[in-house]
Amino acid sequence: MIKVGILGASGYMGGEALRILNEHPEVDVVWATSRSGQPLDYFHRNFYGSGLKLVSPEEITPVDAIFFAIPTGTPMKMAEELLDQGTKLIDLGADFRLKNRTDWERVYKRQHASWSVVEEAIYGIPELHREEIKQARVIANPGCYSSAAILGLAPLIKANLIDTQKIIVDGLSGTTGAGAEVDVTTHHPEIGNNLIPYNVVDHRHTYEMEQELGQISREPVTVHFTSTYVPITRGILAICHCFPTQHLLRSDILDIYKGFYEGEQFVKVFDTPQDPKASWQYRPYPWVAAVSGTNYCHIGLDIDETRNRLVVFSVLDSIGKGGAHAGVQNLNLMFGLDENTGLERLGLHPY
Amino acid sequence: MIKVGILGASGYMGGEALRILNEHPEVDVVWATSRSGQPLDYFHRNFYGSGLKLVSPEEITPVDAIFFAIPTGTPMKMAEELLDQGTKLIDLGADFRLKNRTDWERVYKRQHASWSVVEEAIYGIPELHREEIKQARVIANPGCYSSAAILGLAPLIKANLIDTQKIIVDGLSGTTGAGAEVDVTTHHPEIGNNLIPYNVVDHRHTYEMEQELGQISREPVTVHFTSTYVPITRGILAICHCFPTQHLLRSDILDIYKGFYEGEQFVKVFDTPQDPKASWQYRPYPWVAAVSGTNYCHIGLDIDETRNRLVVFSVLDSIGKGGAHAGVQNLNLMFGLDENTGLERLGLHPY
Amino acid sequence: MIKVGILGASGYMGGEALRILNEHPEVDVVWATSRSGQPLDYFHRNFYGSGLKLVSPEEITPVDAIFFAIPTGTPMKMAEELLDQGTKLIDLGADFRLKNRTDWERVYKRQHASWSVVEEAIYGIPELHREEIKQARVIANPGCYSSAAILGLAPLIKANLIDTQKIIVDGLSGTTGAGAEVDVTTHHPEIGNNLIPYNVVDHRHTYEMEQELGQISREPVTVHFTSTYVPITRGILAICHCFPTQHLLRSDILDIYKGFYEGEQFVKVFDTPQDPKASWQYRPYPWVAAVSGTNYCHIGLDIDETRNRLVVFSVLDSIGKGGAHAGVQNLNLMFGLDENTGLERLGLHPY
Amino acid sequence: MIKVGILGASGYMGGEALRILNEHPEVDVVWATSRSGQPLDYFHRNFYGSGLKLVSPEEITPVDAIFFAIPTGTPMKMAEELLDQGTKLIDLGADFRLKNRTDWERVYKRQHASWSVVEEAIYGIPELHREEIKQARVIANPGCYSSAAILGLAPLIKANLIDTQKIIVDGLSGTTGAGAEVDVTTHHPEIGNNLIPYNVVDHRHTYEMEQELGQISREPVTVHFTSTYVPITRGILAICHCFPTQHLLRSDILDIYKGFYEGEQFVKVFDTPQDPKASWQYRPYPWVAAVSGTNYCHIGLDIDETRNRLVVFSVLDSIGKGGAHAGVQNLNLMFGLDENTGLERLGLHPY
Repeated sequence: MIKVGILGASGYMGGEALRILNEHPEVDVVWATSRSGQPLDYFHRNFYGSGLKLVSPEEITPVDAIFFAIPTGTPMKMAEELLDQGTKLIDLGADFRLKNRTDWERVYKRQHASWSVVEEAIYGIPELHREEIKQARVIANPGCYSSAAILGLAPLIKANLIDTQKIIVDGLSGTTGAGAEVDVTTHHPEIGNNLIPYNVVDHRHTYEMEQELGQISREPVTVHFTSTYVPITRGILAICHCFPTQHLLRSDILDIYKGFYEGEQFVKVFDTPQDPKASWQYRPYPWVAAVSGTNYCHIGLDIDETRNRLVVFSVLDSIGKGGAHAGVQNLNLMFGLDENTGLERLGLHPY
Repeated sequence: MIKVGILGASGYMGGEALRILNEHPEVDVVWATSRSGQPLDYFHRNFYGSGLKLVSPEEITPVDAIFFAIPTGTPMKMAEELLDQGTKLIDLGADFRLKNRTDWERVYKRQHASWSVVEEAIYGIPELHREEIKQARVIANPGCYSSAAILGLAPLIKANLIDTQKIIVDGLSGTTGAGAEVDVTTHHPEIGNNLIPYNVVDHRHTYEMEQELGQISREPVTVHFTSTYVPITRGILAICHCFPTQHLLRSDILDIYKGFYEGEQFVKVFDTPQDPKASWQYRPYPWVAAVSGTNYCHIGLDIDETRNRLVVFSVLDSIGKGGAHAGVQNLNLMFGLDENTGLERLGLHPY
Repeated sequence: MIKVGILGASGYMGGEALRILNEHPEVDVVWATSRSGQPLDYFHRNFYGSGLKLVSPEEITPVDAIFFAIPTGTPMKMAEELLDQGTKLIDLGADFRLKNRTDWERVYKRQHASWSVVEEAIYGIPELHREEIKQARVIANPGCYSSAAILGLAPLIKANLIDTQKIIVDGLSGTTGAGAEVDVTTHHPEIGNNLIPYNVVDHRHTYEMEQELGQISREPVTVHFTSTYVPITRGILAICHCFPTQHLLRSDILDIYKGFYEGEQFVKVFDTPQDPKASWQYRPYPWVAAVSGTNYCHIGLDIDETRNRLVVFSVLDSIGKGGAHAGVQNLNLMFGLDENTGLERLGLHPY
Repeated sequence: MIKVGILGASGYMGGEALRILNEHPEVDVVWATSRSGQPLDYFHRNFYGSGLKLVSPEEITPVDAIFFAIPTGTPMKMAEELLDQGTKLIDLGADFRLKNRTDWERVYKRQHASWSVVEEAIYGIPELHREEIKQARVIANPGCYSSAAILGLAPLIKANLIDTQKIIVDGLSGTTGAGAEVDVTTHHPEIGNNLIPYNVVDHRHTYEMEQELGQISREPVTVHFTSTYVPITRGILAICHCFPTQHLLRSDILDIYKGFYEGEQFVKVFDTPQDPKASWQYRPYPWVAAVSGTNYCHIGLDIDETRNRLVVFSVLDSIGKGGAHAGVQNLNLMFGLDENTGLERLGLHPY
């Protein structure tokens, strides 16, 4: 059994990590922390009666791996010492994601405390970095929007089929993505029947998208990203618009995507044919509800042949495949387990 | 492995049965049917890419147990022949629930085709009928509102503490309870920001509540039940109001509930203390979101000592503990498995 | 033109008062206050570009009438001096609602600062106190749940048809009723797909219901009230269960209600016949969405003749007929205007 | 008083037209039709008790103006005869919107029955075509997405500041936009906690956007439009991404927008400054909830100076400024009334 600790289990991301690690057949959750002194079900009622407990961060003991679900800036202060002790680290936050220090320090508005850890950290998308993850001591788990956009765009970039300077991504996020801290933008009377754009240019996750897609492209990629809160509780829809550099058919692109993700269990390409007789054309496109609570990413797409635009839809759960579940997928790889262990549950329907 | 078939997997109840039976370690789902000819993910996108398939009802083969998730009136025509073949039956619908034939025929507006099956059927609440279920060939799985109300009220009735003629139950249901068929009451522009009372007196589930609580009471019980759709996708909240026949303290009643459900894994009593300093008094009461997608029922309660009224809150998922999950719990008992097998997953938070 | 001031226009109640008073043909809103220094549209984006402004409470000037939309405890400190200046007062809060001082001081956990104002204040339900309101200097505008329950039950109490000690009211409230201050119970990830019971016994509004219904009954009335937040943004549904003291038909009771509210423009009784062929029986019952944003209260009812229970549904908007709109109706009466002035707008559909 | 008839008042668009025309001080709604034989409140409960009635289309009488809220294909069969009788026509549907016959016939999959009416029809955006509307006999009221996108982009196109071949518009629509007919995409268990892309390329409204923006540009414009249903009941958010052809500052663009819409009562430009200290940057962007139920369009914008992308947010109500309210604005112009008559009501907050 792999001994795991979760630093910061009172928030949504940490609570989700605890939920799935607790059901993981090869993991023993040794501790999960909160500074509050409140019991676990005070934060997460799904654990009521489970017998699980939170401990103070002062009470933690050595483990094989730690999930960080704590505010940006704290993991970077703890990482080196923990690595020295032989602990593997999976940071669900942003401390180790960006490889460009200038960008990181400007975007996160502080100096970085342990850049060498960033240099060794692997960006935790297994579908792109599987072999490196297997060898890694530190994983920088991706941002939720970043996961959706990168998985949605990687095959296109790889195939060198689009204008890489004019990629537009509209990210729609459920309110879970905003976290457990109360705020006016997530106050139900405000958002319950509303749509709230925020951080509409230069969003932090943009840099992750550009970094990872640029690596695939081997040249700089520009992502034009805008984020909006929508009144769903959980999930991300990334709508990615691209301009092909050559004439393409939907079937050609589907083949490229299916080839790229062949053998991947957690990324599913929607190749449902369009039905020209249907009054509403919605079947070939993925629904975010179907992957909520899971490690799945569903991808669908279409092309406007007349206007020469490609649109890709990528859906995942911001604390699932876009967060804690992906972290567990990375853990499985780091410890030589079957990558799917503890992650195969399907979504709920209805959700 | 137990071979199981699901009759009617295109609806929400049958789809949920398929989801959890497919993940059940001791069950092999041999077939799941739909008359439509459409693929499984046409109805349930959570199965996209799973490889699972639907078959026509004409193609079914012998299995150890069948889950019925088909319209009222059909199971009763099939049951006798299937029982003769040695198949165990779990009806997720209403054909075998009521032991009073006059009531059943009036309420369901048709003649019953196989009353002897009703007579042998066990009403599928394991917390009340565990030993009979172990021996049963046919389970009448309870209605969703009935499950919530019966589990919420049984300890009180057993303890003979309330006026059994003045039990009032307000049942609030998510729209999943209305089923997959589209209707004006579940059309999003109508219900999305609305509350829709329906079948407000003499609801069919009332008869189940009165039957089961009456058995516990050993005298007739009258339940005054009203149902309302609320804009959540999934879940039931039963608010049960009772008039105690003696002076009671909250702590006394909690002790009775905790005693009644001692050792039960799937029914959790909320004994969180009230905090008189909290501006909103909500902590001691259960939240339906916490049990959505699970086999759990959470129960909380309070008493107005001045006005001498007791209020009990019982929450569950209409296709979880109030439906397919309870059906699997019954299956486990019928086949001598550990009752919890395949049912221990916790709810999502946030949901 | 009547000169009106609004004390506390940054919250939802005060903002709604400002919206409708601003469109009122006989009212000049001289000022509306906020302590924050922020502009009006910071709180209420519907006013963006309207040119309306907030002022500091220190800047207020004499007006004919003031609406209080400020925290409990403040109006009682200001009322006497304002009345002495000849200002008429409409308190949208709770300072002057309860005529029993012991109850008020216990329930609101403080001493009352000006009980003589309470003694002269009229409880602001025009359908019950129209003539007194015309003469009043101070209106205690009712609580939102209270308005719904009292309007829903008054005809029955007046007709002396039910057991007045066993009245049960389940109040379902949209999150607007919780106010503009952020809180975990109204945090979208928690409430967006959930139902949250709170203050489930001895809710403050219970005392208003018992006071007003007791006055009609001329003997003490006991209301068993429980409140639950539901994920709609706006509106109240009061589900009132009563036990008739004699045999009644639905048509008889409808006649009593229609008689009681004859000539009332803002209370509508649903007398739509039941359709026994309809699969879902929902037509005869009111929908809260239909009255959101308005001064209307819709009432519907049904009777279970077998079990001898009556259920009454009363819907209104917690800051509409259950708040600021009712306050304007009272203002109209106090100043001799046509009662309907500025209040006739219908609800939105869809809402 | 202008005598007005509404053809098709059982749907959402026709019902909204009836609501606001009924409150319009210069209009007498002589009739509103439905083929169903059902009463008005069967479709729209907000009218319960209003006394208003529906009539059969066979019973209509001559009026000064008719609003068409009937299926595509019917207005074009009726228009010529009605015009000959001197009736002015406002088509809330699509029969007269596109000036390119080939496009119309391909997109709407039928032959056009009266192209001469199209030729004289004015596209009903007063902010663009005010003088022509004043003289018009027929108005082609715009599509809801089209209104939002055209109003959001017109100032940029006019100022010749962007690449007109690479305009991307993500349209997010509440479910009211899908109409009153029930469907799986608007079934609450499916959409209630979900996002549903549909008609993602070559949406019919694209042609309106290209036509109107092309007229402003005086050269062909290409709009890359994708539509998604979101679980709000009412409203449209158009997120418009453009690539500036020169270096621009946010303040410059705001000046252009404020200049373009100077004096317009119903289009409001958000010029709220960004607050670099705010944790969530959301204040300068409009919220669709604020304009629901109204004739207002709110527009906000931002620029990514590094990546040289401009994003414009345009919000309106699909049956308000994007439908029936705009139709009334057109009516006012056609009949020489003050353009604002009957349209000044603000949105609700909370909505």
